[in-house]
Amino acid sequence: MASEDKIISWICRVTVITAFFLIGFIIGWFARPTTVNHGHASKSFLRDFLDEMQAENIKHHLRKFTRLPHLAGTQQNLDLAEQIGAEWMEFGLDSVELVPYDVLLSYPNKTRPNYISVVDNLGNEIFNTSLAEPIPEGYEDVTDIVPPYSAFSAKGQPEDELVYVNYGRTEDFFKLERELGINCTGKIVIARYGKIFRGNKVKNAMLAGAKGIVLFSDPADYCAEGVEPYPKGWNLPGGGAQRGNVLNLNGAGDPLTPGYPAKEYTYRSSMEDAVGLPGIPVHPIGYDDAVLLLQHMGGPLPPDNWKGSLNISYRLGPGFMDRFKQNKVRMNIHTNNQVTRIYNVIGWIRGAVEPDRYVILGGHRDAWVFGGIDPVSGAAVVHENVRAAGKLMKRGWRPRRTLIFASWDAEEFGLLGSTEWAEDKARVLQERAVAYINADSAIEGMYTLRVDCTPSLHTLVYDITKKVLSPEEGEEGMSLYESWHKRDNSTDRDAPWISKLGSGSDFEAYFIRLGIASGRARYTKNRKTERYSSYPVYHSVYETYEIVERFYDPSFRRLEAVARVRGGLIFSLADSLILPLDCTEYASSLSKYANSIHQLALKHPAAMQQFGISFDSLFSAVENFTVAARDFHQRLDQLDTSNALDVRMVNDQLMYLERAFIDPLGLPGRPFYRHVIFAPSSHNKYAGESFPGIYDALFDIENAVNPQKAWDEVERQISISAFTVNAAAGTLKPVVGQTDFL
Amino acid sequence: MASEDKIISWICRVTVITAFFLIGFIIGWFARPTTVNHGHASKSFLRDFLDEMQAENIKHHLRKFTRLPHLAGTQQNLDLAEQIGAEWMEFGLDSVELVPYDVLLSYPNKTRPNYISVVDNLGNEIFNTSLAEPIPEGYEDVTDIVPPYSAFSAKGQPEDELVYVNYGRTEDFFKLERELGINCTGKIVIARYGKIFRGNKVKNAMLAGAKGIVLFSDPADYCAEGVEPYPKGWNLPGGGAQRGNVLNLNGAGDPLTPGYPAKEYTYRSSMEDAVGLPGIPVHPIGYDDAVLLLQHMGGPLPPDNWKGSLNISYRLGPGFMDRFKQNKVRMNIHTNNQVTRIYNVIGWIRGAVEPDRYVILGGHRDAWVFGGIDPVSGAAVVHENVRAAGKLMKRGWRPRRTLIFASWDAEEFGLLGSTEWAEDKARVLQERAVAYINADSAIEGMYTLRVDCTPSLHTLVYDITKKVLSPEEGEEGMSLYESWHKRDNSTDRDAPWISKLGSGSDFEAYFIRLGIASGRARYTKNRKTERYSSYPVYHSVYETYEIVERFYDPSFRRLEAVARVRGGLIFSLADSLILPLDCTEYASSLSKYANSIHQLALKHPAAMQQFGISFDSLFSAVENFTVAARDFHQRLDQLDTSNALDVRMVNDQLMYLERAFIDPLGLPGRPFYRHVIFAPSSHNKYAGESFPGIYDALFDIENAVNPQKAWDEVERQISISAFTVNAAAGTLKPVVGQTDFL
Repeated sequence: MASEDKIISWICRVTVITAFFLIGFIIGWFARPTTVNHGHASKSFLRDFLDEMQAENIKHHLRKFTRLPHLAGTQQNLDLAEQIGAEWMEFGLDSVELVPYDVLLSYPNKTRPNYISVVDNLGNEIFNTSLAEPIPEGYEDVTDIVPPYSAFSAKGQPEDELVYVNYGRTEDFFKLERELGINCTGKIVIARYGKIFRGNKVKNAMLAGAKGIVLFSDPADYCAEGVEPYPKGWNLPGGGAQRGNVLNLNGAGDPLTPGYPAKEYTYRSSMEDAVGLPGIPVHPIGYDDAVLLLQHMGGPLPPDNWKGSLNISYRLGPGFMDRFKQNKVRMNIHTNNQVTRIYNVIGWIRGAVEPDRYVILGGHRDAWVFGGIDPVSGAAVVHENVRAAGKLMKRGWRPRRTLIFASWDAEEFGLLGSTEWAEDKARVLQERAVAYINADSAIEGMYTLRVDCTPSLHTLVYDITKKVLSPEEGEEGMSLYESWHKRDNSTDRDAPWISKLGSGSDFEAYFIRLGIASGRARYTKNRKTERYSSYPVYHSVYETYEIVERFYDPSFRRLEAVARVRGGLIFSLADSLILPLDCTEYASSLSKYANSIHQLALKHPAAMQQFGISFDSLFSAVENFTVAARDFHQRLDQLDTSNALDVRMVNDQLMYLERAFIDPLGLPGRPFYRHVIFAPSSHNKYAGESFPGIYDALFDIENAVNPQKAWDEVERQISISAFTVNAAAGTLKPVVGQTDFL
Repeated sequence: MASEDKIISWICRVTVITAFFLIGFIIGWFARPTTVNHGHASKSFLRDFLDEMQAENIKHHLRKFTRLPHLAGTQQNLDLAEQIGAEWMEFGLDSVELVPYDVLLSYPNKTRPNYISVVDNLGNEIFNTSLAEPIPEGYEDVTDIVPPYSAFSAKGQPEDELVYVNYGRTEDFFKLERELGINCTGKIVIARYGKIFRGNKVKNAMLAGAKGIVLFSDPADYCAEGVEPYPKGWNLPGGGAQRGNVLNLNGAGDPLTPGYPAKEYTYRSSMEDAVGLPGIPVHPIGYDDAVLLLQHMGGPLPPDNWKGSLNISYRLGPGFMDRFKQNKVRMNIHTNNQVTRIYNVIGWIRGAVEPDRYVILGGHRDAWVFGGIDPVSGAAVVHENVRAAGKLMKRGWRPRRTLIFASWDAEEFGLLGSTEWAEDKARVLQERAVAYINADSAIEGMYTLRVDCTPSLHTLVYDITKKVLSPEEGEEGMSLYESWHKRDNSTDRDAPWISKLGSGSDFEAYFIRLGIASGRARYTKNRKTERYSSYPVYHSVYETYEIVERFYDPSFRRLEAVARVRGGLIFSLADSLILPLDCTEYASSLSKYANSIHQLALKHPAAMQQFGISFDSLFSAVENFTVAARDFHQRLDQLDTSNALDVRMVNDQLMYLERAFIDPLGLPGRPFYRHVIFAPSSHNKYAGESFPGIYDALFDIENAVNPQKAWDEVERQISISAFTVNAAAGTLKPVVGQTDFL
């Protein structure tokens, strides 16, 4: 009995022990994570990250970075690069490096200033434009303020009659040639700034045969109503003028090394073979000078709707002009091109789980003078983004993916720093870059948010702006989304307006050449009521710290809001388990663009019929894409997120979607514009065109010399677009067995 | 006391229970796999896979697929596609599809045969070449044997004096023009086959101004010594002739849709804008006809070393020729180009762990006639590879990565099927393709193995051939590696000889355009002693089942060995945890190529000095690459292979290494040849050239019209090569913080 008891007792013990062992085993089994754990709650860190960014800090950064000019290629801008790099390291980035390139820049000749003269029939210079802008108060002791000039202008002293060409747009020259019968060949033309990128004006002038072009700021385009000129208000003073490059690079980067980074050993083409350099002298003047210049000149009378705000002063009628008939304009341009070293600052936070996936926040550092708005309002925001990220890392956070912060150089000279780095790192970026968020000027108006981005980012932009508060007085507690929504509703749905990406800033190489999902956000004016171009003091010496602090954002809460939007975007892109990219938004945008380009073609119903042009293949491709995108997101909803490789697989599909729109052959004549859905307009680099290949083929087609050939090209471009959309749809399909014949 | 005992006893129990719980927990914790397990022992399955492939089966497949002609674009070839597809499904593939494209093909006119005539001074055709080859025994009832022709020849009936141009190589035309003073302008030229791709001969003839070109097979190039003509032996009979396309596509695929897949909706260029079509008539003849044709002709006497084996019969001296001085040659060519539907067969095995990683085995199915060697010796091997893979799947195996099997169409018409599919799927292939193994003819001689592949595959090729037995009699128990090694040692190390990839088969678009690691393997002749071109009956009607069964591989053990090599390669690439690609092999090949191109440049020491040409940047880039490759493999040795994402990350670096050598801008004038390290020679498509950009810039540079410009281009190409090698090195570096300034 006792032995029986003992046996029972032992059986019990063994049973209990075994049971506990098994319980332990089971708990151990299930307690062990099967995927590498993120190690933090991403959402709460997002809140911390957004809250960490503060107006006061941005103000401080802006003040610090705007005391001196920092033109690309100067010692000051290298000093600033080193300062920013050092501070980023202090903030806590894993590594920061200065990455140099040797690119073609352009500076005025210090001993022979550029100016424009009016020359009478005896050859006397009876009027000369000013050599510099009046320096704003407080900056009188600053040296090295570069006078207004057109970077990369050809040298020369052409002299001839002056022809006014309005904005110098393609349609303006068409009007001159086709309606007004005015020939610009061999003439000097004068165009007012605004509407389009200045490089396009210069190109148009060259195509029209002009031998020089003067650019001026008309108050109609550079003064807001009821606003005083700086320093009393934020309008452009009469002595201010707009600097800027006048290249037509079409995405090539450094003009001497198209397609390759401008390293020490890189082959450089001759100046004759350089990309995008204007062949004629170009020079910018302010409106005080423009009035005087135009007062002294003859030349044809412009049509009424071209007159801008200077019409009273410069056109008193044919009788008045006779006095000046013999006068000519002489341009005196001595600007030099020279290969110069520039420096990008590149900082990294290594991703905890997927270090080989990159989310990039990049904005330029170089400024024409102080860069109060352009770019330092943006660079100060980047600085705050980096500081906040560093702060979070000290609290134990590390993003799932790698974050890259870039302070680009020489953006003002043709997006050179960002493009050279994109060329340098093209291979790893193509393989690994998830998204690029651009951080140029963070403010250009006082009204509401402005976002331009790829369609797949729409949803994330809306999500993030719902998490940020409105910076506007009287909107306490209201979300930025709500504030933005009520101010600027989309035309085709009940959501805030988001626009296509054009160009004119550093996202270009990343988005248009490499096909990396990109976006930008800034505070802007009311685009429906405020008709001036960009912002009045754009690229003048009056872009100071004070113009932001006094007028644009006294509380710095607008810049804070922009910081939180940009920061929230990169945080979510770097830290979400599943990439926050929305393919169905791409589908609806494609559908919109296809309809819109079809409508454009339908303006030529007879030719469409005659040449048998059909958009069916494109519409069918968009439908395929729409189905693929919907199915993809349905599968995504059922994904087992505990399987690390399955997650990686769908994330790769999301990441590579934008890449799928890249055509390695590029657009006709524009090998570095390779995105089939988006390109800068051929007539205005600042504007984005959808289905640019088809658009350009249709442009002015009614005047084509060979209509058959012109419509063949339309057909070819439709075919390329249809194929590309189908191919992009293919990337969203299940990864095996997708050889269907579309 | 009792209670104390009890307490102690309870403490003991609890302790024991806790201990067992903890032990259970710990065991449970560690027992649970943290990565998705492969679920099988890859190595033992490799052995099974290799053993599964058997000579008898390959013999059976070869017999079955060679009964009828299956020219691209014909019903027979569609039937064969369907048969192959159905059998692949039976073998056990997950899915099989026929993927059609509509491409430009070329066929003789059925009612107006092509031939060449000798016309006397009265205009009489005193000799005509034969219209067809004598049909081999056993195939007399077969219809639809296409007569010998040059696919894509221009139509026309040019008539003129005949000029013999030897092999029609660049150097042959240089000799004619520069040394012999013979002008081909307006003449009909005759070239013997061999040494270079026939399309290059035609291009050279056009450049020389010829208005037609006749191609013939000289016994010196198409008969092996001591071998009887077919059917008694495997030499080319006198009535046999070599079919083949005479395009110069430079990788464009379908001539009407360069860069895009030839789908129904795809825009097709006009014939005038088509890529690569010869502008002159071209026609091939056998040596019986060639003797007679040449006997009747005058024309300049060729140099002694050009005479080939026909020298006795066709050149009896100037006196003899006088009789024929007035004779002319007339070509009668009526071949038609027409857009025709072709079909690729694409089969898939879904990868178990990484379905979005593709390993491709592809070879063509279309043949000029029966295709006993080209391509069916290869297609039969693919069939056996698929059968063996299906067999393994039935035993529970499934590869880690996805396997894709392709039976390409219209390879003979310019690699069309494979190139169109590559264009169609470019995006997913770029993102996901690990490697491409080509499976054209598996045998072209009876001596040993021949492998051409990218350097990173060298090590795997050696490993696999060590696991396969020699098929040679008297070598029982010897490995294929050993057998191959003793027959064909490398010139620069103690290992079997492996060559660069050229072109002329379907890997071209995958390797040269898309940058997917590629390789090919076949059984070959003794390249040191057997001097004939390819194999004698190449592209003739005598490529039958019997020629393989009687002469090339009676036991079918050579084909079995090739099947095991190709099969072993795709198995290892698809199933290894870490991709079996060796970057250090790439490094040593780069070093070899850099030295070799430098040596070539050093043949111009004066010019090198005068124009300041330096290869330093290239050598420094190769050094960077070498260090990066070595460091990469060192890190690989320390990799924690239990972390699925870390494994994926290094595999991505390995997969994308080949992609890194792709320059999106392509080689000068050859936009679809984009691999900076390898391209088909500009003078012979079959041959591979390393650093082709530099090579072409240096070619014939001593005769450059503008030496400064020519050497500038050399400098530019060195710079591009150096950058590309540096960029490729960058992809192997740690993925974070790699912004060093190279």
